[in-house]
Amino acid sequence: MSRPAPLSGFPEWLPGGRIVEQRLLDSLRRTFELHGFAPVETRAVEPLADLLRKGETSKEVYVLRRLQEYSDPAAQEKLAELDDKMLGLHFDLTVPFARYVLENAGHLEFPFKRYQIQKVWRGERPQAGRFREFTQADVDIVGDGSLPFRYEVELPLVMAEALSALPIGRVRLLVNNRKVSEGFYRGLGLERIEDVLRGIDKLDKIGPAATLDLLVETAGATPLQARACLELAQLHGADGDALAAEVWQLAGKHGSSSNLLEEGLEELKALLAAAAAAQPGVIEADLKIARGLDYYTGTVYETVLAGHEALGSICSGGRYDSLAADGSRTYPGVGLSIGVTRLVSLLLGDNLVRATRPTPTAVLVAVADEASRGRSADVARALRRRGIPADVAPTAAKFGKQIKFADRRRIPYVWFPGAEGAEDEVKDIRSGDQVTADAATWHPPFDDLWPRIETIEPPTLADSIDTTIDAPKAAFDVTFGDAD
Amino acid sequence: MSRPAPLSGFPEWLPGGRIVEQRLLDSLRRTFELHGFAPVETRAVEPLADLLRKGETSKEVYVLRRLQEYSDPAAQEKLAELDDKMLGLHFDLTVPFARYVLENAGHLEFPFKRYQIQKVWRGERPQAGRFREFTQADVDIVGDGSLPFRYEVELPLVMAEALSALPIGRVRLLVNNRKVSEGFYRGLGLERIEDVLRGIDKLDKIGPAATLDLLVETAGATPLQARACLELAQLHGADGDALAAEVWQLAGKHGSSSNLLEEGLEELKALLAAAAAAQPGVIEADLKIARGLDYYTGTVYETVLAGHEALGSICSGGRYDSLAADGSRTYPGVGLSIGVTRLVSLLLGDNLVRATRPTPTAVLVAVADEASRGRSADVARALRRRGIPADVAPTAAKFGKQIKFADRRRIPYVWFPGAEGAEDEVKDIRSGDQVTADAATWHPPFDDLWPRIETIEPPTLADSIDTTIDAPKAAFDVTFGDAD
Repeated sequence: MSRPAPLSGFPEWLPGGRIVEQRLLDSLRRTFELHGFAPVETRAVEPLADLLRKGETSKEVYVLRRLQEYSDPAAQEKLAELDDKMLGLHFDLTVPFARYVLENAGHLEFPFKRYQIQKVWRGERPQAGRFREFTQADVDIVGDGSLPFRYEVELPLVMAEALSALPIGRVRLLVNNRKVSEGFYRGLGLERIEDVLRGIDKLDKIGPAATLDLLVETAGATPLQARACLELAQLHGADGDALAAEVWQLAGKHGSSSNLLEEGLEELKALLAAAAAAQPGVIEADLKIARGLDYYTGTVYETVLAGHEALGSICSGGRYDSLAADGSRTYPGVGLSIGVTRLVSLLLGDNLVRATRPTPTAVLVAVADEASRGRSADVARALRRRGIPADVAPTAAKFGKQIKFADRRRIPYVWFPGAEGAEDEVKDIRSGDQVTADAATWHPPFDDLWPRIETIEPPTLADSIDTTIDAPKAAFDVTFGDAD
Repeated sequence: MSRPAPLSGFPEWLPGGRIVEQRLLDSLRRTFELHGFAPVETRAVEPLADLLRKGETSKEVYVLRRLQEYSDPAAQEKLAELDDKMLGLHFDLTVPFARYVLENAGHLEFPFKRYQIQKVWRGERPQAGRFREFTQADVDIVGDGSLPFRYEVELPLVMAEALSALPIGRVRLLVNNRKVSEGFYRGLGLERIEDVLRGIDKLDKIGPAATLDLLVETAGATPLQARACLELAQLHGADGDALAAEVWQLAGKHGSSSNLLEEGLEELKALLAAAAAAQPGVIEADLKIARGLDYYTGTVYETVLAGHEALGSICSGGRYDSLAADGSRTYPGVGLSIGVTRLVSLLLGDNLVRATRPTPTAVLVAVADEASRGRSADVARALRRRGIPADVAPTAAKFGKQIKFADRRRIPYVWFPGAEGAEDEVKDIRSGDQVTADAATWHPPFDDLWPRIETIEPPTLADSIDTTIDAPKAAFDVTFGDAD
């Protein structure tokens, strides 16, 4: 086997990168659980019938075939055929969750709050910047028959709290309400609402002129109607009353008014007011948010990272009324989904953060000679029993070499078991400080116990001018994603 | 959409079951990290060339096709063909890890200790009791060029510690050494070692008579040689010296001796001695352990659950020398893999354990009327800020109904915000105790803070006779895997 190359679209991290990802996921899980969201994990596959039901992404499904079908003559004939019952990898966590709710409704308590953190797959052609495998972290609240509007307010606040706990800088949650868009479009006389939304959804990508053409060509809009849609899409702001006034003014100008528009604006105002009270400056309205998926019926959400708006939305979702429905019951819900891999990829790729070390080990216990390895193992065992991650040096090399072994892994402490009768000593290899210590009582500072995420400060102009500044070198000599 | 049915071979759990699984995985992760194992996650797919290289499982691969290939005429023609570069889902975590080591060797520090917890897939025909998707938890230690034998001792001790921390009763790690088997077989004059091992691996399943036939038919053994192999396979015990004596006696009887046999027995003795010193009663030798995979070269491991031996091995692995090798370097290693899904399936399916509740929520804050919902939300926020999982009641129903809402989810505490000027109160709905409380200072007992795994005691004979015994009813009125 020669040295393998990475597969385009299937990102993997070195251990230090994986530790960063784990810390992010641990943090998200904690926030979700503090808010009472229960964990769910669904299988990776769904029948094609369910995967192909809805939405734009369904064409990017990976279909599964058993290897044995390729050698079994009877099965071979059918290899070029598709069948509803065949299995495909899920492309999001919403479709599987809707199926899970239907399948288990009798055993769940509603309103049901769940979070779900799993890989999803998109069978796209390989191309730069597109992931074919990535991790999503979803939260949804689902009701039995009905779900009050207030959950459309609660959910983005939970998510804002979850995202704010991550070392990713400031996030802005952008919201719109489908009722506002649809009410306005219908008031204009437009009927192909989904086509209009799909057009508006492309606004940021293709610009206003091309969007206008698209609305005329694909959504049956007159140039005047299309222009009105674009004008609506340009409105934004955190002050609900001011925004509503602008919308009403626009509606008046174009003669576009409807009860649905009024209902949507009331909801949007309520959301913005509650958001401003709970977490000022995080949530604002942006009426160009359309979300391509046709199952949304109320509030829709996107999230941008301040300073990284070009990355697009890192967390999106919305209110849906009939995604999960069997013959007799519907389960309306509201959900939000974080694109974790995209986030981690940005953090590691741009060297914004790193793990304080690429291994859990806090203490490396040195080995004086192979005969005393058992003594070193005893120390490590005593430390672990007290919750301190510890490992024993692999060889009884010179202590300088053992310290280097720790240093290469950024393990902060090296422990030297005392010879017969002598006390043990532990050295902080960053500062060089060495003190006597007892494995039954010594404890590292809390910050050193487990690897953490640390922010890497970008070199400032001052650093390049004033060479006397003693910048923390260790923060720069490591390529991230490159554990080290 | 009608109510969907489960897919055979793709197990899913209700939230309470998932909480049990999460707690097991959290516990494993903690033990592995305390021992300095770094986390790695690999992509779900590998090129078929790598998946089909080795081992018995490779024929059970799921091959991936992009949905678009079925509608694109050019791609369609090739749907019945296989190609080395096509992608398949990994069927274990060893093959991907070997590839990961080769790909990233320049960025890793050796000996490299990693753990990896992920789903794997086997494209088998659907059949009862066989999983087609399941979670494995792997630990491996890999060296650059060489790896001392002592890691073959360290790894099962780490695993014994990890398994002992789970609420699964007593585990027994059974070990053998390939050098013992191969040395003995070669001493007998047998050469098709892999075929002999594959035959012996089937012993438990097909019995001694059929195994004897198999060895004669597939491994080129005479009946006498085959019988000798079976005699070796029957030896077992925790006392290395006694076992070695039995093996030498057998080797003498059959004239089967070799340096390899001697080397293997020395290693086995060393392992048993170290194991007895560190964790007496957990590790013993069982010379019928063969492991079907041909890449093992030293110690091999299986693990059974006391009282559930019929379940087969829940944790297996071994020493390998050349699994990961490019042209110039080899990375020998030793690894162990837990079949987590099989374990969880047993625990839930047999009602051996359950989560103390199927939601993280420890406190449900009641709502007196919709006007005061904000006051209840403030209490929940104050509790969460102090690390206490809290949720707000969905409706301002009568308090009795709100308590029932909590009870159905086994949420232990219901909080009643005081009316204007009055103090808040919190009720333990299990005992009925209600006390005044302040959200800024009150804390539940540690055991109630997060859902835990609790063991479900089987009803004893006494329970069915003495009806005056006040058995904890809650432990029996719940079907597990059935969150509640």
